[in-house]
Amino acid sequence: MSTGTVRPSATALSRLRPVDFAHVSIVDGFFAERQKINRERTIPHGFARLQDSGPLNNLRLSAGVDGRYQALADTSGSTFPFLDSDVYKWLEAVGWELGRGTDADLAAAADEAIGVVAAAQRPDGYLNSYVQVVHGGTPYRDLAWGHEFYCLGHLIQAAVAWHRTHDDDRLLGIAMRSADHVDRAFGPDGKEGVDGHPGLEMALVELARVTGERRYLALAARMLDLRGHGLLGEGRFGPAYWQDHAPVRAAATVAGHAVRQMYLDCGAVDVAVELGDDGLLAAVERRWLDLERTRVYITGGLGSRHRDEAFGDPYELPPDRAYTETCAAIASVMLAWRLLLATGKPGYADAIERAIYNAVLPGMSRSGTEFFYVNPLQRRTHRAAEGPGHRGERQPWYPCACCPPNLMRLLSSWEQYVATVDDNGVQIHQYTAADIAAGDIRLSVRTDYPWRGRVTVHIVRSPDRPWTLSLRVPGWCRSATLTLPGATEPLAVGPGTAEPTRQWAAGDTIVLDLDLPVRVTEPHPRVDAVRGCVAVERGPLVYCVESVDLPPGTELEDIRWDRSRDPEAVERPDLGDGVVGVTIPITGVGSGETTMAALPYFAWANRSVEAMRIWIPA
Amino acid sequence: MSTGTVRPSATALSRLRPVDFAHVSIVDGFFAERQKINRERTIPHGFARLQDSGPLNNLRLSAGVDGRYQALADTSGSTFPFLDSDVYKWLEAVGWELGRGTDADLAAAADEAIGVVAAAQRPDGYLNSYVQVVHGGTPYRDLAWGHEFYCLGHLIQAAVAWHRTHDDDRLLGIAMRSADHVDRAFGPDGKEGVDGHPGLEMALVELARVTGERRYLALAARMLDLRGHGLLGEGRFGPAYWQDHAPVRAAATVAGHAVRQMYLDCGAVDVAVELGDDGLLAAVERRWLDLERTRVYITGGLGSRHRDEAFGDPYELPPDRAYTETCAAIASVMLAWRLLLATGKPGYADAIERAIYNAVLPGMSRSGTEFFYVNPLQRRTHRAAEGPGHRGERQPWYPCACCPPNLMRLLSSWEQYVATVDDNGVQIHQYTAADIAAGDIRLSVRTDYPWRGRVTVHIVRSPDRPWTLSLRVPGWCRSATLTLPGATEPLAVGPGTAEPTRQWAAGDTIVLDLDLPVRVTEPHPRVDAVRGCVAVERGPLVYCVESVDLPPGTELEDIRWDRSRDPEAVERPDLGDGVVGVTIPITGVGSGETTMAALPYFAWANRSVEAMRIWIPA
Repeated sequence: MSTGTVRPSATALSRLRPVDFAHVSIVDGFFAERQKINRERTIPHGFARLQDSGPLNNLRLSAGVDGRYQALADTSGSTFPFLDSDVYKWLEAVGWELGRGTDADLAAAADEAIGVVAAAQRPDGYLNSYVQVVHGGTPYRDLAWGHEFYCLGHLIQAAVAWHRTHDDDRLLGIAMRSADHVDRAFGPDGKEGVDGHPGLEMALVELARVTGERRYLALAARMLDLRGHGLLGEGRFGPAYWQDHAPVRAAATVAGHAVRQMYLDCGAVDVAVELGDDGLLAAVERRWLDLERTRVYITGGLGSRHRDEAFGDPYELPPDRAYTETCAAIASVMLAWRLLLATGKPGYADAIERAIYNAVLPGMSRSGTEFFYVNPLQRRTHRAAEGPGHRGERQPWYPCACCPPNLMRLLSSWEQYVATVDDNGVQIHQYTAADIAAGDIRLSVRTDYPWRGRVTVHIVRSPDRPWTLSLRVPGWCRSATLTLPGATEPLAVGPGTAEPTRQWAAGDTIVLDLDLPVRVTEPHPRVDAVRGCVAVERGPLVYCVESVDLPPGTELEDIRWDRSRDPEAVERPDLGDGVVGVTIPITGVGSGETTMAALPYFAWANRSVEAMRIWIPA
Repeated sequence: MSTGTVRPSATALSRLRPVDFAHVSIVDGFFAERQKINRERTIPHGFARLQDSGPLNNLRLSAGVDGRYQALADTSGSTFPFLDSDVYKWLEAVGWELGRGTDADLAAAADEAIGVVAAAQRPDGYLNSYVQVVHGGTPYRDLAWGHEFYCLGHLIQAAVAWHRTHDDDRLLGIAMRSADHVDRAFGPDGKEGVDGHPGLEMALVELARVTGERRYLALAARMLDLRGHGLLGEGRFGPAYWQDHAPVRAAATVAGHAVRQMYLDCGAVDVAVELGDDGLLAAVERRWLDLERTRVYITGGLGSRHRDEAFGDPYELPPDRAYTETCAAIASVMLAWRLLLATGKPGYADAIERAIYNAVLPGMSRSGTEFFYVNPLQRRTHRAAEGPGHRGERQPWYPCACCPPNLMRLLSSWEQYVATVDDNGVQIHQYTAADIAAGDIRLSVRTDYPWRGRVTVHIVRSPDRPWTLSLRVPGWCRSATLTLPGATEPLAVGPGTAEPTRQWAAGDTIVLDLDLPVRVTEPHPRVDAVRGCVAVERGPLVYCVESVDLPPGTELEDIRWDRSRDPEAVERPDLGDGVVGVTIPITGVGSGETTMAALPYFAWANRSVEAMRIWIPA
């Protein structure tokens, strides 16, 4: 049984193949702790919130249970039509967890949720609680804003996870009947329609991969072709908001709502590799490269504008009004992963690394039960009064709670992103203590990454033929060495990949040493908003300063980076096991302090939520 | 007959009194041309747009005419409930124009509009086309979003203008009946209610001044007292959006939607001066000073955030994503004028000057028939695809067309802001060629301001007693002199006011010379968004550079200010009579250019709409 969040078929145009989910175990260290918190605290917290905030109950109402639909966006009476998707994302996360090991409580909660979903589905296969309960029962009346296809996409993703991880096809049956309902209405002989929020496209490709039904792939391809021709209209924010301003294979740059653009391009890559459509893949890569060059924050966050949760102009990257939705960062990981599989280019793994540490993980508290929707790179000492859901602290849940279960499903499937295989061997992309089995190769990776730069790969089992162990040397790394078995001295290796090829033997040990000096980073000269500032990085981590580390009575806005002195790495056991902080040289604090503690940005707002900044005036 | 947009009663707590509207004539120069364009082109254009875009027709429907209500905000079906106010603002502008002189075409258009408004009013006095036609006919069901009081406020302001300027009380009767309807429902014995959009408060005070009915003043005071106690709820953006987060006399800073805050504080000043409420006045002054210190752009624009058209954090002043709605700048002029009358402090006249030239006038094209809603301080060469109404060019009209008729009424009443009187004499606040009659004093002011710094005041008639001629010396002016009649040499005068007192005689001439060097302005160090940049000012004007003045193939983002050289003023007859531009020293353009033309910001986007910036990296 093949598993994975993305599993290109054997004939796909794909450079790399994922390692089976069940064949990678994160055994220790940074991500093991993150996965443990996710499993033990975040996912159970999510189930409770899905119960009390409405989404599960809304599905119960679809099955005929009496009650009030809970989906108020605000007191003006707007209603969110997309809350079913939160149930599905949570179910996907549970699917990965139950694939990793049994858990009676989680299984019982999932059984309850699956039962609710099954009961909610209409006999004709249609399933959407908002339309069934609130919006009159007629499907597909408001594709622009209704999120019906979008919700189905998440149902399919959950179904695929349950199928792949432990062969439980209860959700798959529901998802197929619902997908068939869409296919009858919008398939080749049906109406032309695309959803205002992309997402179904990638799910349909996965459904085709799991079921072998090519018509799902065809439907996904049809939806991609139909977008960009004005089917959705101008909307409140113009057609670029939902990427309907230009055909998917023509649009030169990312545009509009960031999550929508990323999800759309995920579907485009999936369709491209399955159909061998080089042109479509090239279009997505072109957009990605432009995105990386012009519209990604130093954190890997993306989508700067609050008004429409959208990409701004090139280099419009304000730190204070950075929207940088947690979901957008997650979606960028999903897209970079697909592009990595398709092309094998290590830059995509670099992007995944930057985003997971600095744009995804900041969205969750150390406790695992509070979440950021918006991830600013600067928070001032004095601030404007803000509205609900946009206050400074991480929240236990949101009226629009897309981010929390998105975090859950990404973390619960994180081992996916660690390694891939191809006909030449194994590629390790993300460094974490893990055991990896890929065909007849067994590896054991040990590291204290991201705090320490040493990565040790033990060959546990090797076939009797030469193969290549590919190790990513991150783009941020200016100095790295590789020590091969029996070597008397290490080899310098440059950014990209180190790819030693030989007849490996069990017991061989390969050591990759990545130098992790503190780096002082200048912004791109076109980024107007942080001109004259510097940021601190170490390894894959972006650092920030918080006002809680200043003497009372001083304000973070007054500190200035002292260019005459160097920052220094320092142990920070108070922030967690092995955590490395940075002491930065400053001036400007009246009390005479000349240094200040910086901490990894992902860890901010866990002690108190006051002023914070990543970019420091120099 | 006393006239003016704001006319404190004889007993009001007010340092200065307005000069009658009819007793100031702008005779020549900068504002004469602006008023001519407004009268001959902008106001007729407005009438045509009110006809074809819906607002007039919507009022016809209220009178029982068949037709479709035209108020679609967007294709998602949202409807704007406040379009009646555009008719009223336009009528106010026409009121001022007909007070200045007869115009048969304008009078006929106004007669038509007044007839429509009169027919739309219900027998019980209620008048709001949205509620009557679209929203079921029950008044005051949605005070938070419905804008019913807000629209009435604009009706009253129009009625007051028509009453004061030429004794036409058709609108006043309609407005009083409508105000009485509100007073019965929400007066001292009625329900507690405030509008999500302030504006009625200041209008009720004016209505009380015009009619002598104190109950209108009491109703305004009641509405001010009721705000800030949660009557409006959280809304989409939190209670600060509509200034309901803190009582009006307690809130320490401006907050939320910028236009709402300014209109609210206008009403607060009006109530404060009429009731002699020092505490309320002090609260508004305190907020204003904080606003000037922390949240006003160099242009005088205010309200930086797009999402909720709101004030941001202190010093959150991005040039690219500056929302700086034209209406907010207009509202700041209205508030500064009230504070100037109440306190006599010349800083308020400085603020009016800064805003009118650099935040209000940029909202209108040189032709007078296209308008900006949003006024950014930077526009990039390469930009994100944006939505309708948020494109780069000025538009002939907007679905939400609050700004164009607001510009019309401000320009048509601009002579209001030129001078005031008090028991000691006359104060001249704004410099423009004008004839002024104040009681038994007659003055003739001649100047080529803002292009030249010389202001000549001729005493045409003077009473037989000493009196004070107060002349504002703008805060930006580092060097100014005053030459009095018979003096052998000029006197140096500092920023604030020059206040020569004597027994003036007809034929006396006073010359104020304001030095107008080009100023290179550094930003406040807390304004993160423009750190490392400088701006160019000359006199009251802020300058900008436009890419149309660069050689082809070069981009505005590449220019850098050359600190080793000085900018120079230069004649720009191509931009209009007397216009003075600035040549700035630059580096960074590949073609070897070492200077670039800067032009007054208000004149930008009249040749082509490409890249522009006020703040230039140094």
